[in-house]
Amino acid sequence: MISIAVIGFGYWGPNLVRNFMEVSRARVGAICDSRPERLAAARQRYPSAATFSDCAPILADSSVTAVVIATPVASHFRLVMEALGAGKHVFIEKPLAASAAEAERMVAEAARCRRVLMVDHTFVYTSAVRKIKEIIDSGGLGRLYYYDSVRVNLGLFQSDANVIWDLAAHDCSIIDHLLPGLPRRIAASAVSHIAGQPESMAYVTLFFDDDLIAHLHVNWLSPVKVRQTLIGGSRRMIVYDDIEPSEKVKVYDSGVEVNGSPESVYQTRISYRTGDMYAPKISHDEALKAAAQHFVDCVESGARPLTDAEAGLRVVKMLEAATESAKRGGASVELNW
Amino acid sequence: MISIAVIGFGYWGPNLVRNFMEVSRARVGAICDSRPERLAAARQRYPSAATFSDCAPILADSSVTAVVIATPVASHFRLVMEALGAGKHVFIEKPLAASAAEAERMVAEAARCRRVLMVDHTFVYTSAVRKIKEIIDSGGLGRLYYYDSVRVNLGLFQSDANVIWDLAAHDCSIIDHLLPGLPRRIAASAVSHIAGQPESMAYVTLFFDDDLIAHLHVNWLSPVKVRQTLIGGSRRMIVYDDIEPSEKVKVYDSGVEVNGSPESVYQTRISYRTGDMYAPKISHDEALKAAAQHFVDCVESGARPLTDAEAGLRVVKMLEAATESAKRGGASVELNW
Amino acid sequence: MISIAVIGFGYWGPNLVRNFMEVSRARVGAICDSRPERLAAARQRYPSAATFSDCAPILADSSVTAVVIATPVASHFRLVMEALGAGKHVFIEKPLAASAAEAERMVAEAARCRRVLMVDHTFVYTSAVRKIKEIIDSGGLGRLYYYDSVRVNLGLFQSDANVIWDLAAHDCSIIDHLLPGLPRRIAASAVSHIAGQPESMAYVTLFFDDDLIAHLHVNWLSPVKVRQTLIGGSRRMIVYDDIEPSEKVKVYDSGVEVNGSPESVYQTRISYRTGDMYAPKISHDEALKAAAQHFVDCVESGARPLTDAEAGLRVVKMLEAATESAKRGGASVELNW
Amino acid sequence: MISIAVIGFGYWGPNLVRNFMEVSRARVGAICDSRPERLAAARQRYPSAATFSDCAPILADSSVTAVVIATPVASHFRLVMEALGAGKHVFIEKPLAASAAEAERMVAEAARCRRVLMVDHTFVYTSAVRKIKEIIDSGGLGRLYYYDSVRVNLGLFQSDANVIWDLAAHDCSIIDHLLPGLPRRIAASAVSHIAGQPESMAYVTLFFDDDLIAHLHVNWLSPVKVRQTLIGGSRRMIVYDDIEPSEKVKVYDSGVEVNGSPESVYQTRISYRTGDMYAPKISHDEALKAAAQHFVDCVESGARPLTDAEAGLRVVKMLEAATESAKRGGASVELNW
Repeated sequence: MISIAVIGFGYWGPNLVRNFMEVSRARVGAICDSRPERLAAARQRYPSAATFSDCAPILADSSVTAVVIATPVASHFRLVMEALGAGKHVFIEKPLAASAAEAERMVAEAARCRRVLMVDHTFVYTSAVRKIKEIIDSGGLGRLYYYDSVRVNLGLFQSDANVIWDLAAHDCSIIDHLLPGLPRRIAASAVSHIAGQPESMAYVTLFFDDDLIAHLHVNWLSPVKVRQTLIGGSRRMIVYDDIEPSEKVKVYDSGVEVNGSPESVYQTRISYRTGDMYAPKISHDEALKAAAQHFVDCVESGARPLTDAEAGLRVVKMLEAATESAKRGGASVELNW
Repeated sequence: MISIAVIGFGYWGPNLVRNFMEVSRARVGAICDSRPERLAAARQRYPSAATFSDCAPILADSSVTAVVIATPVASHFRLVMEALGAGKHVFIEKPLAASAAEAERMVAEAARCRRVLMVDHTFVYTSAVRKIKEIIDSGGLGRLYYYDSVRVNLGLFQSDANVIWDLAAHDCSIIDHLLPGLPRRIAASAVSHIAGQPESMAYVTLFFDDDLIAHLHVNWLSPVKVRQTLIGGSRRMIVYDDIEPSEKVKVYDSGVEVNGSPESVYQTRISYRTGDMYAPKISHDEALKAAAQHFVDCVESGARPLTDAEAGLRVVKMLEAATESAKRGGASVELNW
Repeated sequence: MISIAVIGFGYWGPNLVRNFMEVSRARVGAICDSRPERLAAARQRYPSAATFSDCAPILADSSVTAVVIATPVASHFRLVMEALGAGKHVFIEKPLAASAAEAERMVAEAARCRRVLMVDHTFVYTSAVRKIKEIIDSGGLGRLYYYDSVRVNLGLFQSDANVIWDLAAHDCSIIDHLLPGLPRRIAASAVSHIAGQPESMAYVTLFFDDDLIAHLHVNWLSPVKVRQTLIGGSRRMIVYDDIEPSEKVKVYDSGVEVNGSPESVYQTRISYRTGDMYAPKISHDEALKAAAQHFVDCVESGARPLTDAEAGLRVVKMLEAATESAKRGGASVELNW
Repeated sequence: MISIAVIGFGYWGPNLVRNFMEVSRARVGAICDSRPERLAAARQRYPSAATFSDCAPILADSSVTAVVIATPVASHFRLVMEALGAGKHVFIEKPLAASAAEAERMVAEAARCRRVLMVDHTFVYTSAVRKIKEIIDSGGLGRLYYYDSVRVNLGLFQSDANVIWDLAAHDCSIIDHLLPGLPRRIAASAVSHIAGQPESMAYVTLFFDDDLIAHLHVNWLSPVKVRQTLIGGSRRMIVYDDIEPSEKVKVYDSGVEVNGSPESVYQTRISYRTGDMYAPKISHDEALKAAAQHFVDCVESGARPLTDAEAGLRVVKMLEAATESAKRGGASVELNW
């Protein structure tokens, strides 16, 4: 039985506690938050967990095997480094860090301490994304053409992050998981319409080798909620709609066929193939519970998690490049891996 | 009764003939196409119209008041200049011309000849866009934040144009009609996945004054057809879905409110307002017929059409800038008006 | 080349002329309507067809091989009997006749005259219904449980028929084509909310052997248009949505499984199986053109049409029984076949 | 502070405990279930509540003010009578009883004991139904024409009830709340496709005065989940889609207008009016919590609940009549109120 402490009981923390409570071979023994009213809420819902307003005693407690951190991103670096230094395994909210420089040091520290450092890229653990991964890896889409995501809604302004670090972080983690290779350069435009507030909408384009392109529209100020991703390939195409209650992933047997010689535009014959569509069964398991269980499994077995610190670093590099590009008026930023 | 000659009886020409046939105070007296099989089709469907394989006799015929041109864009400049020179009024398919330089000379020639030169920006004449125009002009949306359009489908490759000149031309004409001001700069990325073929997908961003931003996703290689535009404003927001059979325009009384002083992030209070939605009645009149009638009215009255050659020139400038930016890897291109 | 005369150029007649014009090995040589303004419209659109205000000369003309009748249902019996008597093959709008008694005499007369009498049950010729037929006939749904159709919209009041004879006629023809066996009894409720007008909404239930049940909701006074049919079976289920532009037929690999002995409720284990969904490609061919071609083929070959007079009679029997039940306050009416 | 005991911790009981826990001025002090494993689950989640395998000590405990009953319907009568007799206020799951005879005695007993007996007709407390009630009561729909509900899904078989008592109970409670007057007669057809199992699909028609008609399609064996209700009136019509995440209630300014004299069909002019649609804001409050709070308020104030025992009795009468009609092959059953 692994004893887990959860640090941060704000917006996401309660979901983490609830899910880690249901995981096999682990229990949440402690909850930490600096705000008395949040600690009171934690005590009422989880009377069996000890509560702390400071994480020092938790890190000093040798019976605590792992810490789960759900605090603002600005605090990630310090908390993770302290926890790793105290010998704890760490499960950290996305994004891993506020900068690639920080993330690199966290990767190194986890390696040095031989501890599991897993980032909560929740979408990677959804049944939908796992099914898409399976289809892509089996060659079902053929050569990949594009990944296009719209992730918009009338949502919560984050005070400590703009919409890229909040919403595009999800897409970057999905892209990192699904697509072959890494983006070579990134261009982004971001706008803030409320004076003094972080950018609330952004368009991010990621350029890969072989003309593969990914594009993200993230927006906190949309009248409607949209969570739709198109993935185009030479053989099949996917529509992944995360709002759709039952048919989240649709696979279209449609595409373009080039007949004849591609040398001459005039000799080429382009024809469209429109075929059947199928929607594979997607289980309704909660992704966060799967992520929580995966973390506990990795702590026990010493295996490297699917969304390890390296994945977290790659995502932070993408977010940093997008932010840099947006600052430079959309001029694209090269990525070195 | 105005006698009209239609030049070009390919993909769009038959729609033009059908609609001009139904317009008041006009008749289609002649149809011209260089392909014998297209002329045969025209004769079968419209036995009352004379057919020509060359447009010279049409332009020389003083009983022909106006010509309607639906030929490939490369031929627009020459045909329009000849028609204007022969004293004809001209209705021309979008885009007006293959370059801004050509378009400028066409604008000048129409002015010199005192003839109507109208561009078929069909969407401007749809009931949906007219309703949105009404809402925006009345201040219903408040300050405009963004225009975001997705126009994708498994579609026809054009041999003489890439997807920007084909599909984004529609959005540029809608933007030109709806939004206040003109874009200051444009950035675009475009990709061709089929060797030797024009770009089949593109992302175009248009930057206006006052942080107004417009963004277009156009794509010939999508598994599904999407025609959705979000228009965000400080007071209300619009979802315009052109595929929706009955409720094409939805107006959301939703937005963000800033309470308190905007000087300090910490003192600002952002709150979301989610309110009623309403979908105004949109008539089902065919836009192309409305455009055809508007052209005939302008020829008769001498009025300037809503989508005159100047509008056509502005759209061509946007398309040209987008193409230039895409060639330069997405670096934005300034527009001078 | 078969020469066809179309009698009735009102609401549906123009669609029939247009489609029979495009059929191979046939031409529409004559159009007949008693209203001068309709004949004028016919002449303008189809200058090559002769027009008549009375059908006597058409029936007397030996060069006319077949007549296509699109007149109010009250006139069907007289026109069809005269046409058959004159040796013409007949294509008649649905429903075949205003009563089963009439329909029976028409069936007999067609047999006696050895002429093709085909009813325009258009839906039977749609790609969607043909695909569903294929799936059912191959056993893909297992044992059939139910057919449930909702066919409602804010529509046209018919002056000569209530909503059962107008809209439910479509469903009865689809049911007649798709389902095994014939309904044993029918119950219906119908309501008129506008004084002096025919019933504008109705619910019709058809009872088959083996607990197979069909149910229709037809309504001219709905705020929205719905054309959705659920077909339940023991192995798979179908959702057929005729409004859906691209995925009209969805096949669900879902159902209920009974494990263990069905004798005892307590020992029985019911479990639900939710599986993949697939949407077969449905071609966009116009059904009416397919029906028209099928008629011409049958006239030439002497083959019995898919929707022959017997099918027309069966549908009229169902409509008559439903009307009778509605008059009797919903008490069910037995059907003798 | 009112002390509440919850009897039955099966499928619905946990939702009741959770919601009564959050209600003002009340607390759940005891949970009762005869199954040890359910009691263990209750203890783990709600360590502060006492648990009992039998309800006798709860009823004997004078500190318990009210009981909340979520047991199979067969046990409702006995439990409610005992609880009322012991002086407790009672909140009971729908349907109130297994028969109208039982329900009538429960109504009388509640009156005799002067205790609140409230039925959990949850939908009455949803924001959507409350908004529709407001629109109907204000005359917004004009004269009511029909209520048409489809409530189908691939769902849970109930061992102690057929689909009418399970799903149609919801619609009957909504109808009882929304519509003026009471149904005069009811006709129903119900089918069981699994040997030895209760009916899994049914069609129920309720006839009111003034040609108002209500119709329900309830089905446990549908491939898709549908929760759509159409409400037609002479001035406006409503589509209430409970699955729609944000726009559950849409009000259509559409209808039919009769111009001229209704005496003669030929003189009458029917025209359709298609107008704007609007979707009022619907709050996302949980209906069950509102119902729980309403119960506590009524216990405190002595007010009669919105869904009192009389409402429960009316719903049971409808369900009983529908069941009787289904047994008699669909012959309609009169209702005496």
